[in-house]
Amino acid sequence: MPKKIRLGILGGGGDSLIGVLHRVAAHMFDSYEIVGAVFSPEHEESLDFARAIDIPLNRVYKDFDTLITEEMKLPESERMQVCSVQTPNFLHFPMAKKLLDNGFHVICEKPMTTTYEEARILQEAHRKAGTVFAVTHTYTGYPMVRQMREMIRAGELGKIHKVDARYYQGWINPIIHDRSKRSTVWRLDPEKAGISSCMGDIGVHAFNMIEFTTGLQIKSLLCDFNYLYDDNQMDVDGTVLIRMDNHVKGVIRASQVATGEENGLAICIYGEKGGLRWEQERPNFLYRLSDTQSLQVYRPGHQYNSELALDGTKLPPGHPEGIFDAMGNIYRGVARAIRGEAYNSGEFPTMTDGVRGLNFIEATVASHKGGNVWVDLD
Amino acid sequence: MPKKIRLGILGGGGDSLIGVLHRVAAHMFDSYEIVGAVFSPEHEESLDFARAIDIPLNRVYKDFDTLITEEMKLPESERMQVCSVQTPNFLHFPMAKKLLDNGFHVICEKPMTTTYEEARILQEAHRKAGTVFAVTHTYTGYPMVRQMREMIRAGELGKIHKVDARYYQGWINPIIHDRSKRSTVWRLDPEKAGISSCMGDIGVHAFNMIEFTTGLQIKSLLCDFNYLYDDNQMDVDGTVLIRMDNHVKGVIRASQVATGEENGLAICIYGEKGGLRWEQERPNFLYRLSDTQSLQVYRPGHQYNSELALDGTKLPPGHPEGIFDAMGNIYRGVARAIRGEAYNSGEFPTMTDGVRGLNFIEATVASHKGGNVWVDLD
Amino acid sequence: MPKKIRLGILGGGGDSLIGVLHRVAAHMFDSYEIVGAVFSPEHEESLDFARAIDIPLNRVYKDFDTLITEEMKLPESERMQVCSVQTPNFLHFPMAKKLLDNGFHVICEKPMTTTYEEARILQEAHRKAGTVFAVTHTYTGYPMVRQMREMIRAGELGKIHKVDARYYQGWINPIIHDRSKRSTVWRLDPEKAGISSCMGDIGVHAFNMIEFTTGLQIKSLLCDFNYLYDDNQMDVDGTVLIRMDNHVKGVIRASQVATGEENGLAICIYGEKGGLRWEQERPNFLYRLSDTQSLQVYRPGHQYNSELALDGTKLPPGHPEGIFDAMGNIYRGVARAIRGEAYNSGEFPTMTDGVRGLNFIEATVASHKGGNVWVDLD
Amino acid sequence: MPKKIRLGILGGGGDSLIGVLHRVAAHMFDSYEIVGAVFSPEHEESLDFARAIDIPLNRVYKDFDTLITEEMKLPESERMQVCSVQTPNFLHFPMAKKLLDNGFHVICEKPMTTTYEEARILQEAHRKAGTVFAVTHTYTGYPMVRQMREMIRAGELGKIHKVDARYYQGWINPIIHDRSKRSTVWRLDPEKAGISSCMGDIGVHAFNMIEFTTGLQIKSLLCDFNYLYDDNQMDVDGTVLIRMDNHVKGVIRASQVATGEENGLAICIYGEKGGLRWEQERPNFLYRLSDTQSLQVYRPGHQYNSELALDGTKLPPGHPEGIFDAMGNIYRGVARAIRGEAYNSGEFPTMTDGVRGLNFIEATVASHKGGNVWVDLD
Repeated sequence: MPKKIRLGILGGGGDSLIGVLHRVAAHMFDSYEIVGAVFSPEHEESLDFARAIDIPLNRVYKDFDTLITEEMKLPESERMQVCSVQTPNFLHFPMAKKLLDNGFHVICEKPMTTTYEEARILQEAHRKAGTVFAVTHTYTGYPMVRQMREMIRAGELGKIHKVDARYYQGWINPIIHDRSKRSTVWRLDPEKAGISSCMGDIGVHAFNMIEFTTGLQIKSLLCDFNYLYDDNQMDVDGTVLIRMDNHVKGVIRASQVATGEENGLAICIYGEKGGLRWEQERPNFLYRLSDTQSLQVYRPGHQYNSELALDGTKLPPGHPEGIFDAMGNIYRGVARAIRGEAYNSGEFPTMTDGVRGLNFIEATVASHKGGNVWVDLD
Repeated sequence: MPKKIRLGILGGGGDSLIGVLHRVAAHMFDSYEIVGAVFSPEHEESLDFARAIDIPLNRVYKDFDTLITEEMKLPESERMQVCSVQTPNFLHFPMAKKLLDNGFHVICEKPMTTTYEEARILQEAHRKAGTVFAVTHTYTGYPMVRQMREMIRAGELGKIHKVDARYYQGWINPIIHDRSKRSTVWRLDPEKAGISSCMGDIGVHAFNMIEFTTGLQIKSLLCDFNYLYDDNQMDVDGTVLIRMDNHVKGVIRASQVATGEENGLAICIYGEKGGLRWEQERPNFLYRLSDTQSLQVYRPGHQYNSELALDGTKLPPGHPEGIFDAMGNIYRGVARAIRGEAYNSGEFPTMTDGVRGLNFIEATVASHKGGNVWVDLD
Repeated sequence: MPKKIRLGILGGGGDSLIGVLHRVAAHMFDSYEIVGAVFSPEHEESLDFARAIDIPLNRVYKDFDTLITEEMKLPESERMQVCSVQTPNFLHFPMAKKLLDNGFHVICEKPMTTTYEEARILQEAHRKAGTVFAVTHTYTGYPMVRQMREMIRAGELGKIHKVDARYYQGWINPIIHDRSKRSTVWRLDPEKAGISSCMGDIGVHAFNMIEFTTGLQIKSLLCDFNYLYDDNQMDVDGTVLIRMDNHVKGVIRASQVATGEENGLAICIYGEKGGLRWEQERPNFLYRLSDTQSLQVYRPGHQYNSELALDGTKLPPGHPEGIFDAMGNIYRGVARAIRGEAYNSGEFPTMTDGVRGLNFIEATVASHKGGNVWVDLD
Repeated sequence: MPKKIRLGILGGGGDSLIGVLHRVAAHMFDSYEIVGAVFSPEHEESLDFARAIDIPLNRVYKDFDTLITEEMKLPESERMQVCSVQTPNFLHFPMAKKLLDNGFHVICEKPMTTTYEEARILQEAHRKAGTVFAVTHTYTGYPMVRQMREMIRAGELGKIHKVDARYYQGWINPIIHDRSKRSTVWRLDPEKAGISSCMGDIGVHAFNMIEFTTGLQIKSLLCDFNYLYDDNQMDVDGTVLIRMDNHVKGVIRASQVATGEENGLAICIYGEKGGLRWEQERPNFLYRLSDTQSLQVYRPGHQYNSELALDGTKLPPGHPEGIFDAMGNIYRGVARAIRGEAYNSGEFPTMTDGVRGLNFIEATVASHKGGNVWVDLD
């Protein structure tokens, strides 16, 4: 008789959008109960938020270290089982590391760390801990992305020879062209945002989607960024040439100045026997292209769907599910893993995805700064 | 400091899809706590389901009457505040009536009752109770439907002169053409499903969408059903000519034999100054048509959206929300109403919508059986 | 060794859009040569237009009767073989009749006549003449409409049980709401435009598409018009309930006040085994719906296309052809018929289509004026 | 009083698809008369084809040199004014050169020559001749591409900072994976097809579209090809990083192994004030993106269209025109230029476009073979 999994939340309080996304996802399959949190660095704000969402106050701790200390005092049957890390990026690494070191399962927002080096350290900590670790590349939770992955694994495209992924947004456009604004936005400050803006925030999703859906690894890349202005030090746009296996090539395009684009992640995979196309803004449509047959449009909830895709669909065909449902699917996969139930390796992105992502981001910067040269990934 | 609203659930246990939809919606804005339920007519099944979703068992009652009796014994501060009725259709009326008579707020699945007469009785009970009553016409919770309503109320289309709504599904197609199957499906058995299959189940949604978005009332209608076979007594398809105000006309089309259609609800409203088109299967796109300007595509989450539409959007533009989010918006509106907070009249469908719906369904049957004659609505 | 067919043109001069459409179509497959014409009632205008498009002037006649007289004097090997009638509607009948009576082939714009009675007379004249007669229901010339027809004939949808066709335009909207304008537009003057505006001009195309693609005949109909204003005597909007064979029903919707709609002809056909959907404004996409399989999108130029569809496609897949190409296909079919070559019955609409169309238009008026009663077609 | 322009055709006989496209385009606006031709290297085939399309035989010459010799003997008032070169690629240069040297106007299929050097020579010949020279980058003739160009010229996007163009086809996919096939296809034989397959055939269209619509020039590029197999020497896929002005960057993607893609040319232009997107397979839709306003969908034939776009539209909104119409628009522009009438510089692509194209193609090869280095364009 399953009890709800005891979930702790780090960050995600106040007006946090990511906080809403995680809480709804956690509740979606009746699998988690929020038992404790540090919603904010200000304890009083944490408590206020706990009251606002009507969470018991006794395990709303004043800071992360106290949370660890106090939770470790509780008997294992009461202790938090998993913590969801939704804090600013630079805190992901120290928090995730300490959680792993103390035997917690972890759900970690993306990027997993701010450097590849940290990512490798975290990977080692995870290896020792042996707990469940998920990185929330949310888009992998969409049923049609899962369908894509399963079709490719089943060989429906034959040998893949070309990949093309795009993530276009336009939100920095109204900022970047105004010198006073661009000097004050944290995203464009390397001290606060790390080594990359565009590629680190969204390009990495496109990268992850390619590896997630194809099961192949990108071997090397050549990247060109666009900063738009000489006094801007952060990439707001970039294109990455990629090489996978022998003679398999592709391109990743990412932009934060694709004016008017909203959240335009899209991926196309082409193989000997067919192609597949998916777009995040119309997530319930998957297009199968063929040399000889009519275009086919796959939709969720049908018997022709793969088991993994169907597992990620709660309602019959024609009832659109969205990004909350995608995140819910990831949370459910993590719950199954924590409970030791059977699950598909595609149910949630893992430590490996997180490590690969940081490897990718640093490689794009190295390639661009090196004069658009080819850089190998590990 | 808001406490979560104490919610009781009637029905929705086991594999019920509608049950999942309501539970996720209830949790979506941290506004409700499930405190009791009768998930199933079999008490043991109810208890099993409560264990499966990890709900306390002490208020999982053996039947609806016991729920009422026992809850009324509790102090008001502990008693369920609102019950969500998700049972088979014929139970909606007696349950909703008794809930109202005992002072509960009610969230009632659609159709509100099985006859117009019951609906009128329930309306009177509601008038006496003075509590909050919502009918879950879920589609009205989509941000772009709310946008449509607000644009029309703001006069952006000018005087409306034509409406066109469609709800096409195909799921009965594989059943209706097989005599053995069609005689055993409860939906096609008037004893179990009431006087109408297609118009009662889905046509009424199209009807509701017209009245919800335009704020106008349909005055009279002429309907033609299709039964497809002489031995089938239930409509599986139908078209309804409608008349609203002076010289305002339109059409409602509904089908369960539109082969291959999934859940094809769509609505077009045309007025002197422009038109609006929305489709349920692509809910995050709203099309504004004009005689003189380019077609405009409205999307959720933008500053150009109406307040009511923005209120129903949790994430920035480009992050697709779906039907769970639409239902969540309705639950939030009900929560605000229960708490006495300010809310927009478009946040949830009310008793009036429920009553109108039954009036519509019975009028379509009367028109068809009367030989496709015009029938007035009250 | 084929010589170009000798073509005469009636009307279509000056700024006439329909004239351009016919001339381009005639030239499209190198099959016709324009040898004579009466482009305009004013002879000098006719001559000017002939000069503008560089046509020999010697057979540009002063009026239609002269054209007949003079052409009949020519030896058969020089005489016009076919005349294309593009004059105002009321002239279609007398011209077409005289052409048939003198043994010419005829390509006639739609509507073929202004009354059903005339249509029947013309049908008889055609029977006697034994020449080729085509009515330019242009939309039937699109490859994907031909594909639709052939798939249905091949039984791919099984027994059809529901049809739904729409033709929505908005162009009268800016006129109808202005009393001064609506009293001066010839389309809204029954003396000039005949008994119907909306149904006669565009509804009849939707009607034709249903009969053309399904091969079935509409047996009876019930129609409701909308005039919008009491002082307007012409339908600008209407909905038609239709009955075909036993238990096959459907609906035709037509409007000239669907604000902002351009030329929105669309047709959906549903049968036991599947459905088909096509839209005129995206003519190179044909959607095949299924209960059990993914949606399929048929495109022109592929080997999976029917012979008739492929015959109507000049370029490889992905090179969009449009309405000029559709008309070109019809002209080519007529050329084949005139030359006595083999052709498919779907290559051009015939006298029967013209007669049926007039029958439909008059039936809709009779139904509406009779109080929305069922009216049988012959 | 305009006489039709006397047109000669080189190539385009037999089953040639490009021949149909040019002939229909030439007839579209009643502006050209075909007076002579060399349709095929075999004179008898040329004559047969002339008979099939019913062209006078007396000026169907046995070869190109004879055509020049004989036409030059005719008085200028009878002589061909313009020749349309539709022969295999390697003949474009010698024919176009000799035509220019003898004072003819030229319409030349793309690629204009097989090398950049030839292109420069031809440019010089054209400078001397002073006649009209058009390269048939057909896609520039679409009304919505013209609209794009005019909106950008009018400053509606503000300063442009990013461009993204794609041309994806899949037709080589079934060939490339079969060693026996790939060694026998002329497109993959450098002796016959020149230095590039994919970039030379279709990538150059994407390049041209960027320069045509933005009015900006690409300064340098970095290219990576994919050959897929070691024994294949011709690019069948490639990605090109491009740099335009200071801080303006972009990407061109082209493929002949994008399995199942038909003729997927698409272009996105992003500027400070907005973005524009257009796709060749849905040519009558132009999307205008904005940071702050709803997406706008421009359609042809409306008063809000630019003059140049409207000039390229023959019918009212909603009547789809296609690629034949796009080519027709180019032919009309050339006719106006030949007649010395006023025309817009966007009506047809010129010698400059041809020269730039060859510069681009050779630069991509140089970049790839140089190890993916930046190569400047002239």
